[in-house]
Amino acid sequence: MAQASQATIGDSEFDRDTAVTRRSEGVYDLDLAAGWTIINAVNGGYLLAALGRALADALPHPDPFTVSAHYLTASQPGPAVIRTELIRSGRTLSTGQASLFQYDDQGREIERIRVLASYGDLDGLPDDVRTSAKPPAIPPVEQCLGPQDAPSPLPGNSAITDRLMIKLDPSTLGWVLGQPSGKGEMRAWFGLADGRDADPLSLLLAVDALPPTAFELGIKGWVPTVELTVHVRCRPAPGPLRVSITTRNLAGGFLEEDAEVWDSADRLVAQSRQLARVWTG
Amino acid sequence: MAQASQATIGDSEFDRDTAVTRRSEGVYDLDLAAGWTIINAVNGGYLLAALGRALADALPHPDPFTVSAHYLTASQPGPAVIRTELIRSGRTLSTGQASLFQYDDQGREIERIRVLASYGDLDGLPDDVRTSAKPPAIPPVEQCLGPQDAPSPLPGNSAITDRLMIKLDPSTLGWVLGQPSGKGEMRAWFGLADGRDADPLSLLLAVDALPPTAFELGIKGWVPTVELTVHVRCRPAPGPLRVSITTRNLAGGFLEEDAEVWDSADRLVAQSRQLARVWTG
Repeated sequence: MAQASQATIGDSEFDRDTAVTRRSEGVYDLDLAAGWTIINAVNGGYLLAALGRALADALPHPDPFTVSAHYLTASQPGPAVIRTELIRSGRTLSTGQASLFQYDDQGREIERIRVLASYGDLDGLPDDVRTSAKPPAIPPVEQCLGPQDAPSPLPGNSAITDRLMIKLDPSTLGWVLGQPSGKGEMRAWFGLADGRDADPLSLLLAVDALPPTAFELGIKGWVPTVELTVHVRCRPAPGPLRVSITTRNLAGGFLEEDAEVWDSADRLVAQSRQLARVWTG
Repeated sequence: MAQASQATIGDSEFDRDTAVTRRSEGVYDLDLAAGWTIINAVNGGYLLAALGRALADALPHPDPFTVSAHYLTASQPGPAVIRTELIRSGRTLSTGQASLFQYDDQGREIERIRVLASYGDLDGLPDDVRTSAKPPAIPPVEQCLGPQDAPSPLPGNSAITDRLMIKLDPSTLGWVLGQPSGKGEMRAWFGLADGRDADPLSLLLAVDALPPTAFELGIKGWVPTVELTVHVRCRPAPGPLRVSITTRNLAGGFLEEDAEVWDSADRLVAQSRQLARVWTG
């Protein structure tokens, strides 16, 4: 029964909410769904996935290999338009640009995010793997905790948590009890709540979906992303992902968040780094 | 005497070779110097520094905070033009775009690199530092080795090595003797050969100036950069820098290079990550 009701890639909440409609060559309309908001803003990873979907249609190659996003203004649920440009088309890689706009009261476009991205074909890559990276040490999912396990609603708990299966490593949950570890680490099992398996587009969401590492550094304020770059290294195998995020350097009111995403086959499927501002309330 | 002859920020080979001349609003002419080539191509970090200098003039804020570059075609020494765009101007951060073009036989512009960048004022940042990052363990500079110490010319040795003071940690030099360690690590003391101290623009060079970590993984081929993102976290103190580069995941013909740059005051002044292709010869 659970199997029968499981959402699939292409037929899921995530696919519907990141769907784009081609208005004209390289221009796509979409509607930012309220279900992906965190506090008052639309989640940056969800926005990146929508931009990634538009670029997958606009570019000659299907899969994001590296996507660099600079966040300009906070997105709100509602209508948006993505304008893309093909910069270069090569044999194995193509590079494009995309901007997501929303509208002000006068209907004028306001740019929310601008990205540069290089796309390729993950299925066309050789199988060679020479890696020294090790999967994160996360307890079995049964021993990890999600929002529904919290005695009281989690700080930062928001609509997006209903869309996601996030089970956090208890050793990175000190902040929930007001006892942050002081280590800039956040680790979790990650999936989509409707059971849809991961694909390269949902990896763009996965790297920016956990609570900020800043919480474990004792920071309660907002940590807005300035820039986020994702490398998709491998098509993820079916099953839950493990996401590990690390912050080593909080200085001058900024911090970096390094994310690794591992699939059920123990492959490092995505790496990301973002620069975020720290608003100490 | 050495002191008297030392180049300074603003009056050095690096400053002259990255100088840009404003042709019109947001458009800058420059000449890519042959002195910064590695094998047949102009070094990517040098190009990033030139783009960074143009953006520093075009944007309302002086210092690069995060710069994301997608490399399109290999640059050659000679004339080039940088076209910039101010995307958003905020109180503490401004975001811009820049493209570097060269010319084909018919004088048509060929795009080499496109970047998105967010600029701010490093001197306006608070002094708070909460970091768990540690400076790389590199032997004293006297125990490290540069091209001039090599029994025979280094593989990949090229014009740029004359512009730089690079003293590599012997433990990351196995590749020179045909005995790569198998670890994706490269560490070095880094400076400019004429003694010019580091500034935010030269940090854009520093992150992409060491031999590829792939050499220590036993790869002899070319490792062209697809995308490189740099975060400048702090204005560097005078004196030599320490650069540590790590590759953890070589897979599917691509690898990441994570670079950290530390200054003489033991501050982590820059972080970068690039996605590079592996051409196994």
